[in-house]
Amino acid sequence: MSEQADHQRAALSRRLGHEFANADLLNVALTHRSAGGGDNERLEFLGDSVLNMVIAHALFEARPHAPEGDLSRLRASLVRERTLAEVATELELGPCLQMGQGERRSGGARRASVQADALEAVIGAVFQDAGFEAAASLVRRLFADRLTDLPSADSLKDAKTRLQEYLQGRGRELPRYEIVSTSGVDHERHFVARCSLADAPQTADGEGSGRRRAEQAAARAMLTQLESGHE
Amino acid sequence: MSEQADHQRAALSRRLGHEFANADLLNVALTHRSAGGGDNERLEFLGDSVLNMVIAHALFEARPHAPEGDLSRLRASLVRERTLAEVATELELGPCLQMGQGERRSGGARRASVQADALEAVIGAVFQDAGFEAAASLVRRLFADRLTDLPSADSLKDAKTRLQEYLQGRGRELPRYEIVSTSGVDHERHFVARCSLADAPQTADGEGSGRRRAEQAAARAMLTQLESGHE
Repeated sequence: MSEQADHQRAALSRRLGHEFANADLLNVALTHRSAGGGDNERLEFLGDSVLNMVIAHALFEARPHAPEGDLSRLRASLVRERTLAEVATELELGPCLQMGQGERRSGGARRASVQADALEAVIGAVFQDAGFEAAASLVRRLFADRLTDLPSADSLKDAKTRLQEYLQGRGRELPRYEIVSTSGVDHERHFVARCSLADAPQTADGEGSGRRRAEQAAARAMLTQLESGHE
Repeated sequence: MSEQADHQRAALSRRLGHEFANADLLNVALTHRSAGGGDNERLEFLGDSVLNMVIAHALFEARPHAPEGDLSRLRASLVRERTLAEVATELELGPCLQMGQGERRSGGARRASVQADALEAVIGAVFQDAGFEAAASLVRRLFADRLTDLPSADSLKDAKTRLQEYLQGRGRELPRYEIVSTSGVDHERHFVARCSLADAPQTADGEGSGRRRAEQAAARAMLTQLESGHE
């Protein structure tokens, strides 16, 4: 490895607040499969499970009265690719990645999926190097701001769930969904869904590349109508 | 709680090899939501993540050369509902569950999903009671036989993957799939898929309640043909 790479990794180690007893683990964690040879996918598998667990526990403690569904939605928002890529960017993980020339030239080191995977692999590497408490403390540090500034659990619900709860909360009947048109073929199908209410004449349409997406869009449109009082 | 229930839980504690400092945690873990009041769903969320992590780590150690995909498939086979319900049955968890009368009368305590959820909640309770190492050691003990007697990673691959690898291993082209008929409406659709080879005239059909299931069935039928030499 070049002197520059050594230097970059030492700096990363400081940002992680973890000095590796086995420096090879960090090297493997930072190796994208395009580099050939041993890559970080096994460590990513391990780190993903550690991350999920530590975030689950942090939320369990931070929200002692939240129902399980809220905890699940909050966790999903914290461990999704986009959030992990943000954390990786804050850590300046990208420049430390070892990858194939072609992959690097095409911007691979900045791709969200590559960054998210590498972050999980680094968490796995710390777990392998120093055990659960070291990895848990790293995760809690990396996610500290996001864990104190959690979104409201309601805002994470999908539109169909929010519409259902809106109607139930007002003693009204459940909405119905139907597909009113389908176009395109096979993997490029396009759907239009219509949401209608059992106890009012209004309807709202939504479209998307799948039945589910179209229904969610229709539910969103209906919620907007109801909340703005267009009834 | 009745004396009998107390007695049952003490016996379960011995089978778990864990004496709870906070006995309430075990009580909550064994309370199905049909019982009303506090239920085990939050502990199940926590325990599920602990279980996934400990099994991930055990497989990572037990299979030092297995690629990530094999580790994922092995874990899925160990933590799926059916396996968890088997472990719960070995632990005699069912009779310890607290649930509503109606739910119990309709056989709820023997349902696989109820048993699997309660097992995860018990793992979560041990984690909350005594920390990571205690929960990890419980999981390793409960899954010891299954972790030493792992299925082959290949046997866990789905049929389309196995067919693809079979053909690639012989330098042959990839199979094609097409849906040759669809019947029924909406949520009761029935599909027939046909698998054909690029370099041989043979085809194989499969059917199922979804496009994916039908294609898997067709791949399985094709593999059977190829492996029995009907070409």
